[in-house]
Amino acid sequence: MPKRHISLGLDYGTETARALLVDTGSGEEIATAVAPYPHGVLESHLPDGTGLEPETALQNPNDYLTVLEQIVPNAMRAGGVQAEEIIGLGVDFTASSVLPTLADGTPLCMLPEFSSNPYSYVKLWKDHAAQPEVEEMNELAEARGETFLSNYGGRLSPEWMFPKTLRMLRKAPEIYAAADRVIEAGDWLVWQLCGEEKRSACQAGYKGLWSKSAGYPSKDYLAALHPGFAGFVREKLTLDIHSLGKPAGSLRKSWASKMGLSPGIPVAVAVIDAHAAVLGCSVAEAGKMVLALGTSTCHLVMHEKKVQARGVAGIVEDGIVPGLVAYESGQSAVGDIFAWFTQNQLPAHYQETARQKGLDLFGYLESLAAEIPPGQSGLIALDWWNGNRSTLMDASLSGLILGLTLTTQPEDIYRALIEATAFGTLAIIDNHTKQGIPVNELYVCGGLSERNHLLLQIYADVTGRRLNIAASSQAAALGAAIAGAVAVGSGKGGNATFTEATKAMAGLKDKIYVPNPAAHAVYKKLYEQYLNIYQTFGQGTLNTMRSLREIKNQASPRRSAD
Amino acid sequence: MPKRHISLGLDYGTETARALLVDTGSGEEIATAVAPYPHGVLESHLPDGTGLEPETALQNPNDYLTVLEQIVPNAMRAGGVQAEEIIGLGVDFTASSVLPTLADGTPLCMLPEFSSNPYSYVKLWKDHAAQPEVEEMNELAEARGETFLSNYGGRLSPEWMFPKTLRMLRKAPEIYAAADRVIEAGDWLVWQLCGEEKRSACQAGYKGLWSKSAGYPSKDYLAALHPGFAGFVREKLTLDIHSLGKPAGSLRKSWASKMGLSPGIPVAVAVIDAHAAVLGCSVAEAGKMVLALGTSTCHLVMHEKKVQARGVAGIVEDGIVPGLVAYESGQSAVGDIFAWFTQNQLPAHYQETARQKGLDLFGYLESLAAEIPPGQSGLIALDWWNGNRSTLMDASLSGLILGLTLTTQPEDIYRALIEATAFGTLAIIDNHTKQGIPVNELYVCGGLSERNHLLLQIYADVTGRRLNIAASSQAAALGAAIAGAVAVGSGKGGNATFTEATKAMAGLKDKIYVPNPAAHAVYKKLYEQYLNIYQTFGQGTLNTMRSLREIKNQASPRRSAD
Repeated sequence: MPKRHISLGLDYGTETARALLVDTGSGEEIATAVAPYPHGVLESHLPDGTGLEPETALQNPNDYLTVLEQIVPNAMRAGGVQAEEIIGLGVDFTASSVLPTLADGTPLCMLPEFSSNPYSYVKLWKDHAAQPEVEEMNELAEARGETFLSNYGGRLSPEWMFPKTLRMLRKAPEIYAAADRVIEAGDWLVWQLCGEEKRSACQAGYKGLWSKSAGYPSKDYLAALHPGFAGFVREKLTLDIHSLGKPAGSLRKSWASKMGLSPGIPVAVAVIDAHAAVLGCSVAEAGKMVLALGTSTCHLVMHEKKVQARGVAGIVEDGIVPGLVAYESGQSAVGDIFAWFTQNQLPAHYQETARQKGLDLFGYLESLAAEIPPGQSGLIALDWWNGNRSTLMDASLSGLILGLTLTTQPEDIYRALIEATAFGTLAIIDNHTKQGIPVNELYVCGGLSERNHLLLQIYADVTGRRLNIAASSQAAALGAAIAGAVAVGSGKGGNATFTEATKAMAGLKDKIYVPNPAAHAVYKKLYEQYLNIYQTFGQGTLNTMRSLREIKNQASPRRSAD
Repeated sequence: MPKRHISLGLDYGTETARALLVDTGSGEEIATAVAPYPHGVLESHLPDGTGLEPETALQNPNDYLTVLEQIVPNAMRAGGVQAEEIIGLGVDFTASSVLPTLADGTPLCMLPEFSSNPYSYVKLWKDHAAQPEVEEMNELAEARGETFLSNYGGRLSPEWMFPKTLRMLRKAPEIYAAADRVIEAGDWLVWQLCGEEKRSACQAGYKGLWSKSAGYPSKDYLAALHPGFAGFVREKLTLDIHSLGKPAGSLRKSWASKMGLSPGIPVAVAVIDAHAAVLGCSVAEAGKMVLALGTSTCHLVMHEKKVQARGVAGIVEDGIVPGLVAYESGQSAVGDIFAWFTQNQLPAHYQETARQKGLDLFGYLESLAAEIPPGQSGLIALDWWNGNRSTLMDASLSGLILGLTLTTQPEDIYRALIEATAFGTLAIIDNHTKQGIPVNELYVCGGLSERNHLLLQIYADVTGRRLNIAASSQAAALGAAIAGAVAVGSGKGGNATFTEATKAMAGLKDKIYVPNPAAHAVYKKLYEQYLNIYQTFGQGTLNTMRSLREIKNQASPRRSAD
């Protein structure tokens, strides 16, 4: 047996971390292992009982290290892989998930004096508490004509590093003051592994208001937001920023021994999870939109030209593949909506019947919803359970279901929710095409692309586009492994370029979902209705969703649950 | 023991019929008995399997007779009542529930040749299939300047006799041709009991487009709807119409013997169930609105003057109490929405926990929803699960929930649904007061007024009005018994007038629900939001709900369930 060259992809999702071992020559996925974060996502209180403000979602950064000692050895054991076969590794991470640290990388939440302060933890991507801060940032940037706005479709998101840090400065100035560094969790992990603080251009570009040509926002702009914020870039960020596929450094001895790897192998700079998934879908051309379908959905498409497109979350030159401009959009809740539905809206007898039929709940629901022809639920929904990330970029928006009658069944609602997320994706696609960025075919990967045939067919029928599926069920982890292989380079068993690496390591399934013309015709009519309510509630005709949040914030609070 | 004078109230609801025995002097409710209709409500198919069109709700008229032989003897047995103590009886009935019969009163559905034809059965009040017909009737009446429209707030309802019969003529001309009579089920029952076809002014006035001064709509108007409809009034209705409290005749021997009553006792003309409930709430003055809270809600208020109020379902002079004009409005689904919610939206663990706590499901839900302060659910709903009866009178409208997030709990939705029905009631109240008809206090009766304290408090808080509760838990049946006592008259142990009868026989509970000012202040803000979406979807800015129905009707149908 010839010597294998294996790249390790480490994929840090919202709930779990995964290790994937991939042969850099054949693309064989040799083994994988996964582990949940011991503390999960902290949304109501810290482990010590400290309550959290609404819209908060935190993580404990120590969890990212703890799981490493499980998933890497477990994957190696499962694949019969020896340390010397693993030639490099890459990391993909949710973003923008940011944390404050000391100059040596110690997270502030690890210090006893800060362990009860929520602002010392990782602010996870889906934390939306910085909505007031981002509104202020948007308003000021617009008033001042800040050019960086055009890289973000004209609006920043509350999920990003700057609004999150501005809120930290406002609400917990002692944390802000103590932070020598504010850093993306993906960059922080790479720093731990190789001992060097090298930041990812992908993360800085899409989530950190950085661009290769213009750098970060100006001191003047930051000072106008808050006098104490003026020095943020100089004091707490670094300009040591590197492109995808570059090695950030080599694996430290201590971590090599904890994971059972060889010390000194290259560690690639971190990549945003959805961007890694593009590589995992073997997409390296313009006009092919990749949907990373998970708890939320990320939409990435490349185009030859840079268009100052509005309503797109991020526009980064060479963002994924050199020579192409990468456009990122997103829906802030997709799988999360379906999970909410099954946890909060399903009568007992559905679980009972699913069990009797030997199906899981989603499988049973899919079998029922598949029997409902397009248009027959009588329902339409707006997919804004966690706000709208694109094209409106407004976290204060919320979900809506319309058309309910006394004969509406749970499966009608389930189907309407799937359709709503498909309409949301079509609104994103249309936003691209109207501004001259073609979207010809769809490529999907992620948790929802594996088994949910109904959802995939509905996406094809609603968008009127062919839908291809990544061969790998771990597209993001595969993308991380590809980044690892490129960081190693061709001399040492890795790959010279991303084009070469994706060709060798990634592929598509045979099954393609093709739009059904009759279904597409009905969905065209429903989409018109979707757009009407989308515009009414999303673009200011009716400010109902925002008003409800204001009324909620002003009214007597709930008694806290004990 | 002095001889008791007892009146029998027969209350025909949507699901069950009830007998109530009441002392005409003391008002003591001596005994009651209830029975469900053997065939229930037929909504998907006839007993022989014949499928029904959407929006259909039928009953088998034979069920109305079958239950009589149970409930009357059962109530008499339970109360130790002898036949000679019962001096008269009254009947209240859902309306407009209409059926076609032969000249001798035989329902067409009892004839073998018609038993598989849905149009030969009772079209229950909540049957909304005649929506297209009522739209045509409204349009034509408006174009022709028909004056009867002003008695119905400017719009007729698909629930009423004329649109239902027009649809019968269109869809089942053979049934229309065979019908010697088209009659309200309440009138039909009275006909069976006393052998004489005497129609109720209450039913004819509110549901049959009849008024004392102008009679029925003109032949010309009917002919313009359909040539075959021209003779409807002359051929299939009677002008033998009588006011509330008048005897329709005396009890026939055959039915006296089946029920165990004395033959020859007076039978009062039928009264609409919600109108009977006004009497059962002891309301006989202007400015007091009675809410009959059940599967749907009926709103009745009296006023000294006749106002051509728009958006009111029915306006009838002397409609309840002589000398006052009675205004009726309604919400087509209230308790039905809550039942839909518990059947279709509640996860298994709610039932489990309710059982562990020894509460019924509604009791447990109420305990959870009561912990949510006004405004804290973040939700707002439109209570149109079964269309809007007042003030928009549009059965094509449907339900909406807005403000949903990933943290929305079932009890948040439950509370929002209760609030939505309260906002719907406030919209009806405001529609009265804006047009000069005062609504000072609320009086409630019916199924939902008995135990649902949270709902009652929310209604007081939303409307900003004091809420009184009928002492009787059977206000409609009590009203029927009052009508029976008035039909008997004062000479023979009954009562001379309604004022005397309600004084003797009806009353209120001690507990009054008083609006909480802080809650009312929050609800004023939420009501503004409610009105915004009410106007947007109800008054034509967005035609989404109607469009969804059109798309549904045009798209491929569901496979029928086997």
